[in-house]
Amino acid sequence: MSSTAVARPDEVRRHNRTTLLRLLHVAGPRTRAALGTELGLNRSTIKTLVDGLAEAGVVEERVPRPGRGAGRPSLLVLPQPQAAVVLAVDVWVDHVAVALVGLGGQILARHSWNLHGNAREPDEVITHVVESAAVLAAEEDVAPMAAGVSVPGVVRRADGRVHEAPNLRWSDVALGERLGAVLRMPVVVGNDAELGALAEHLRGAARGAQDAVWVSADVGVGGGVIAQGASLRGATGYVGEIGHMVLRPGGRPCYCDNRGCWETEVGEAALCRALGLPESAPRGAVVAELRRLDGDAGVALSRLADFGEWLTLGLVNVVNLLGPQLVVLGDLFTALPAAVLEHVGAEVRRRSMVSRAVGGVRIETSALGNDVKLLGAAEAAFEDVLDRV
Amino acid sequence: MSSTAVARPDEVRRHNRTTLLRLLHVAGPRTRAALGTELGLNRSTIKTLVDGLAEAGVVEERVPRPGRGAGRPSLLVLPQPQAAVVLAVDVWVDHVAVALVGLGGQILARHSWNLHGNAREPDEVITHVVESAAVLAAEEDVAPMAAGVSVPGVVRRADGRVHEAPNLRWSDVALGERLGAVLRMPVVVGNDAELGALAEHLRGAARGAQDAVWVSADVGVGGGVIAQGASLRGATGYVGEIGHMVLRPGGRPCYCDNRGCWETEVGEAALCRALGLPESAPRGAVVAELRRLDGDAGVALSRLADFGEWLTLGLVNVVNLLGPQLVVLGDLFTALPAAVLEHVGAEVRRRSMVSRAVGGVRIETSALGNDVKLLGAAEAAFEDVLDRV
Repeated sequence: MSSTAVARPDEVRRHNRTTLLRLLHVAGPRTRAALGTELGLNRSTIKTLVDGLAEAGVVEERVPRPGRGAGRPSLLVLPQPQAAVVLAVDVWVDHVAVALVGLGGQILARHSWNLHGNAREPDEVITHVVESAAVLAAEEDVAPMAAGVSVPGVVRRADGRVHEAPNLRWSDVALGERLGAVLRMPVVVGNDAELGALAEHLRGAARGAQDAVWVSADVGVGGGVIAQGASLRGATGYVGEIGHMVLRPGGRPCYCDNRGCWETEVGEAALCRALGLPESAPRGAVVAELRRLDGDAGVALSRLADFGEWLTLGLVNVVNLLGPQLVVLGDLFTALPAAVLEHVGAEVRRRSMVSRAVGGVRIETSALGNDVKLLGAAEAAFEDVLDRV
Repeated sequence: MSSTAVARPDEVRRHNRTTLLRLLHVAGPRTRAALGTELGLNRSTIKTLVDGLAEAGVVEERVPRPGRGAGRPSLLVLPQPQAAVVLAVDVWVDHVAVALVGLGGQILARHSWNLHGNAREPDEVITHVVESAAVLAAEEDVAPMAAGVSVPGVVRRADGRVHEAPNLRWSDVALGERLGAVLRMPVVVGNDAELGALAEHLRGAARGAQDAVWVSADVGVGGGVIAQGASLRGATGYVGEIGHMVLRPGGRPCYCDNRGCWETEVGEAALCRALGLPESAPRGAVVAELRRLDGDAGVALSRLADFGEWLTLGLVNVVNLLGPQLVVLGDLFTALPAAVLEHVGAEVRRRSMVSRAVGGVRIETSALGNDVKLLGAAEAAFEDVLDRV
C-alpha cells in the first residue's frame, strides 16, 4: 500500500529519464517526436532529457536517412552501446558463454569454453568467468556496471543462491555472493528458463505479449512465465520447475525423486531415444537427424509420434494452468521438424479448454537462437543499471 | 510506463482515503495510532481522513475496552457495514447462494435455493438472482453498490462472459452484461476458484501470503493463484483450469476431450469411488463417510491410498510449476481425514523440488468453509466500490 506524499520534481525527472532510456534500450532508436508520443511527455521535457543524455554521451542524435516527407526531419535518438555495459554469463550443462552487452542490447564481445571433468565445479566456473570478464573488458576498454548469470537450476533471486542445479551436479552454491565479491559489481543470478522468458518478452517472439510461457529443452526442460507483463516468480523468488511436472506416473525415474516427469519424456535424452540415437549422442548428431526428418513430413510425424504426444500433453497442462496467449518453444524444440511443431500446436489448441476459451493460444519457436539466455542474463543485469547511467 | 506528472493534492487525499478504508475493510477495526503506523501517515492526516469518514457515516469511533496501559486510550475506528454494501452471488453446480455483504466483509443477509431441472438454465438463474437481490435489499433497507458473481467455469473477467461452465452445462453466456442490465449496478463475474483464492488471501488461511495457490474439489476441481500478492489471470482475463491438468494419460475420459485430467482422479465422483459409494451419492453421505474414516488413521490411509496419491501428484505439479509458499485446500478436500491430509502434505514436500528449495511449502485447509466463494465474489465487487464510498 503506497502512501507516499507528492513526488519531488527531481524524482519525476529522474523517473522520466530512466523510462526514456529503457524505451531506447529495449525498443531501439526513435525520433524525439516518437519518444514524446510513446511516453506521453511534451516536447520541452523530451528536449531537456535528450539533451542531458547526449551531453553525458549516453545517446547520440543523428539525422535519419531521408524519407519521403517534406520539411525538416525529426532527429533520431540512438543509445550508445558503450555508455552502459553489463556482463552476461550463460552457464549451460556442457559449456559456459560470457559476453559484454551494451546499452541497446548489442553483444559487444564474447567468449565461451566447454565444461568437462573438473571444469564443471563451481570454483572452476567462477574463476574462469572472472578471468574471461577481465579479458573482454580490457579488449573492449569498458567497465561493466553489473553482471547477470543464467543457471539451469533452482535459484533464489534475492541473493543468487543456487539451491540445486542437478544437471550441473551443483547444490547450495552461493554463486551470486561469490561472484559479486570477486567481480566487485552487483550480480543477479537467475534460472535459465526465467531469463529465457525475459529475453523473449523484451526482444524476441513474445515481444508485446502480456501473458506468455517459454518452454525449452536442453538436457533438462525448463519453463519461464510472463504474467501480466512481468516475470512470474514463486515464493522467496524461486521460479517454478516446469520440467518436473509429473506427466507419466510410474514412468522413468527422474533425479528429482519422482517418476515420469515431463523432462524424462521430452528432454534431450528422450529425443535421442525417439530418433533411435544413443542417449549420449552429441547435440550436432541430434540436430542433423532432426533436419533430415524435416524433409519428409510423414516420416517425421510417425517417428516422433510418441514424443509429440508427450510434448502436446505437457503443453496442454501449461496452457490450462497458466492461460497464456503465446507459448514460445526454445533450444532443442526449435530444431523439431516443422510438421511436428504444426501438429503439436494444433493438438494443444484442440485439447486445451483454456485455448478454446481465448480463441486459440499461439505456439511459436524462439527467434533468438542460442543467445536467448545470454540476452536474458544481460537484461536482468540492466534492470538496476539504467537509473545509474 | 508511467510518465504522469506530480499528483495533485486532492488526488493524494483521495488515494489515502481509499487505502485507509481498504485496510479497515480487510483487516478490521484499528486505532488511529495503528492506522498511522500501518499506512505511514502522520497524525494530522489520519485525523482529517477519519473525521471525514466519520462525518459521512462510513466509520464510527469508539473507546476501546480498557487495556492494561495507563493514559488516554487511542480511539478505535470501526467500519460501518451499512455504509457500503455489495451483492454476492455464488453459483454452485447444485445450488445458488446470494448474500448482501457490508463494509468489513460481514454477511448481512443471505438466501439460497437448489438447482434442479430447468432451474439451472441461465435465464432462470438470472431471474432468481434478481428477485432474491430485491427481497434482501428491501429487508435490509440497503442499496448494494455493485455485484460479484462466482461461476464454476471459464470466465472472461473483462465483461463477465462465461465461455464454458461444463458442470452447469452453460456455454457462451453473457452473464455479466445481462445481470448488469437488470440489476443496474456494476457486475463482476469471476471463476469460482479465482474468487476462492481471493477470499483466502484477504480473509482466510492465505492472509499475508504473497504466493499461494487455492485448490478445491466440488463436482469439478478448480484452482486459483495469488502471485506476488495479486490474482494471477491468464491472457484476456481467463483464469487457468487446474482441474484439467492431464495427470493420467489414457485414463478416464473427461468432458474437456482429454483423458486422465486431475479432476477425474480427485473430483467428487472419484472420491465417491474411493469410498465405495455410488458416484452420484449425496454430498452428505460422502462427508459422513469421510468423518467416519477420520476416526481410524490406518483405515483412512489404506482406503484412500490411491486417491491420496493422485492428490499428491497433482499438488507436486502445482508446487513445481508455481512455487507457492502455501497451498490452501478447499471444499470437499477439507473433509478428508486428518491422517490423509498429513500424509499428502508430507509427500508433496518430499517429492517437489521447489518445496525442497523453499524449505517446505505449507499445505493447509480452508478456514472459510462454504462461504469462501461468496466472500470472494463480494471482494471482487468491493474492488471498485471503496473509492466511491
